[in-house]
Amino acid sequence: MAVAPLSIARLVVIGTGLIGGSFALALKRAGAVSEVVGIGRHRETLEEAKSLGVIDVVGDYDLPSFAGAELVLVATPVGQMRAVFAAMAPFVPAKAVITDGGSTKQDVVSLARECFSTSLQRFVPAHPISGTEKNGPSAAFPELYESRRVIMTPLPETSVTSVDMVRSAWETCGANVSELAPDVHDAMLGAVSHLPHLLAFALVDELASRQNGEQLFSFAGGGFRDFTRIASSNPEMWRDIFLSNREAVSRDLSRYRAKLEALQQLLDAGDGAALEAVFRRSQAARKRWLRKD
Amino acid sequence: MAVAPLSIARLVVIGTGLIGGSFALALKRAGAVSEVVGIGRHRETLEEAKSLGVIDVVGDYDLPSFAGAELVLVATPVGQMRAVFAAMAPFVPAKAVITDGGSTKQDVVSLARECFSTSLQRFVPAHPISGTEKNGPSAAFPELYESRRVIMTPLPETSVTSVDMVRSAWETCGANVSELAPDVHDAMLGAVSHLPHLLAFALVDELASRQNGEQLFSFAGGGFRDFTRIASSNPEMWRDIFLSNREAVSRDLSRYRAKLEALQQLLDAGDGAALEAVFRRSQAARKRWLRKD
Repeated sequence: MAVAPLSIARLVVIGTGLIGGSFALALKRAGAVSEVVGIGRHRETLEEAKSLGVIDVVGDYDLPSFAGAELVLVATPVGQMRAVFAAMAPFVPAKAVITDGGSTKQDVVSLARECFSTSLQRFVPAHPISGTEKNGPSAAFPELYESRRVIMTPLPETSVTSVDMVRSAWETCGANVSELAPDVHDAMLGAVSHLPHLLAFALVDELASRQNGEQLFSFAGGGFRDFTRIASSNPEMWRDIFLSNREAVSRDLSRYRAKLEALQQLLDAGDGAALEAVFRRSQAARKRWLRKD
Repeated sequence: MAVAPLSIARLVVIGTGLIGGSFALALKRAGAVSEVVGIGRHRETLEEAKSLGVIDVVGDYDLPSFAGAELVLVATPVGQMRAVFAAMAPFVPAKAVITDGGSTKQDVVSLARECFSTSLQRFVPAHPISGTEKNGPSAAFPELYESRRVIMTPLPETSVTSVDMVRSAWETCGANVSELAPDVHDAMLGAVSHLPHLLAFALVDELASRQNGEQLFSFAGGGFRDFTRIASSNPEMWRDIFLSNREAVSRDLSRYRAKLEALQQLLDAGDGAALEAVFRRSQAARKRWLRKD
């Protein structure tokens, strides 16, 4: 059955940085959107987004900005979403579908229940598993989502047509879209995304806090560079993610700390065979993953 | 003062994988070596190295293989070096300079004192801080060392001419060469290289050991891929490194575990401001490093 190509007359993007900006650019490039209105905290960021062609119109929380909007993407750090949802709720047209790009989903779902209680059928929580350590409109590029996963966590109330529209938008960006329950999403991402970020931030800060920190860094190579790339990520965004998903991350962190304790015992005992076995299992697991990915 | 270009009639490389193979290829490309003899544990690896042009001659621990050698590079995992040093010692010509590419240096220095007691003036311990997660002759490429650091840790007995020759060889490969005391080298690398490898191996193995490990990995993105790249590194090589440098790594691991404990307290207390402060310091420290690097 042929599917009609996506055609959105007006898209409102709240938060015009890497995530929101790249979504807008990808849909524009595909000819799937006629006009993009950008809304955000900082006027200069919006002007920058406009001058870069990421958005067409600098908007605000008012009727003209949302008039005729068919899709609204909230792409701010999750900590801002309560304020954003409250500010936009009075202006979103009755036919507009609302989605978000937040890295945690249980908290976004409960905020939506508070702020969009009469329009939950049009709310589609989603999370593009994609990003770089860069922020802002200048970091946005239309290829960001190509072959990347997007996870939607629709509510029981969410309508099929709303889910289909958001799926179609992300597929137009080149993403592979799947669905999960919000708590399953948060548990998964806590382990494979949030925990690694915490570990990388912790290592860089621990080394930098030493008296010979600068000298230490001068001996770091490509392995260290890649391992700590995620420690250059947006501090505010990650603060919000950890606050939102702290129970799952804390559980994962406890498991990881127990693992480190066990490895330190092997290290202190000089148990080369047991260490090598861990390394071999790890190498093999990563290779299996890369083959599938 | 003009420096005569490096000209090595015969180079012997023991261990013809990524490190040794790339060294040979870089010197060949620069026209700095006439003939490369390769020695190693596995005949098929040596034949592969020869067919790839990494080495010219498949050698062994015997007089013909070492005859006329001007430089010998031992590029095996450090755990093999005792056996390699003992096997080569009877055959190394009196004028040949010996160097290694081991990732730890105190252990290599004490092995050299055992095995090369009469030729320490010609032994130059060194460590190229470079590599990828790939192994074997097919992973070798001549650009591996371009703009990378090589640290030499000469003994008090090492002659200036030997140091100069090894420095010249690494500079011919495009590397930036510096000198450190062996214990300082091991402490530095323990923190910025060995510890991160242990942390990455630990995370991948912890996640892979879970019942839903496969599913977890399927939600991992680019951040996880980079963070765990070093967990694909050679298990045998890394076992040897950890055994060699276990005291320094264990000290660093204790500090890191204390840091994680502190972060978990912040997480459990929901102290967003303190978490964000850690993330900001970490992000800033990494940016400073990248600017200098």
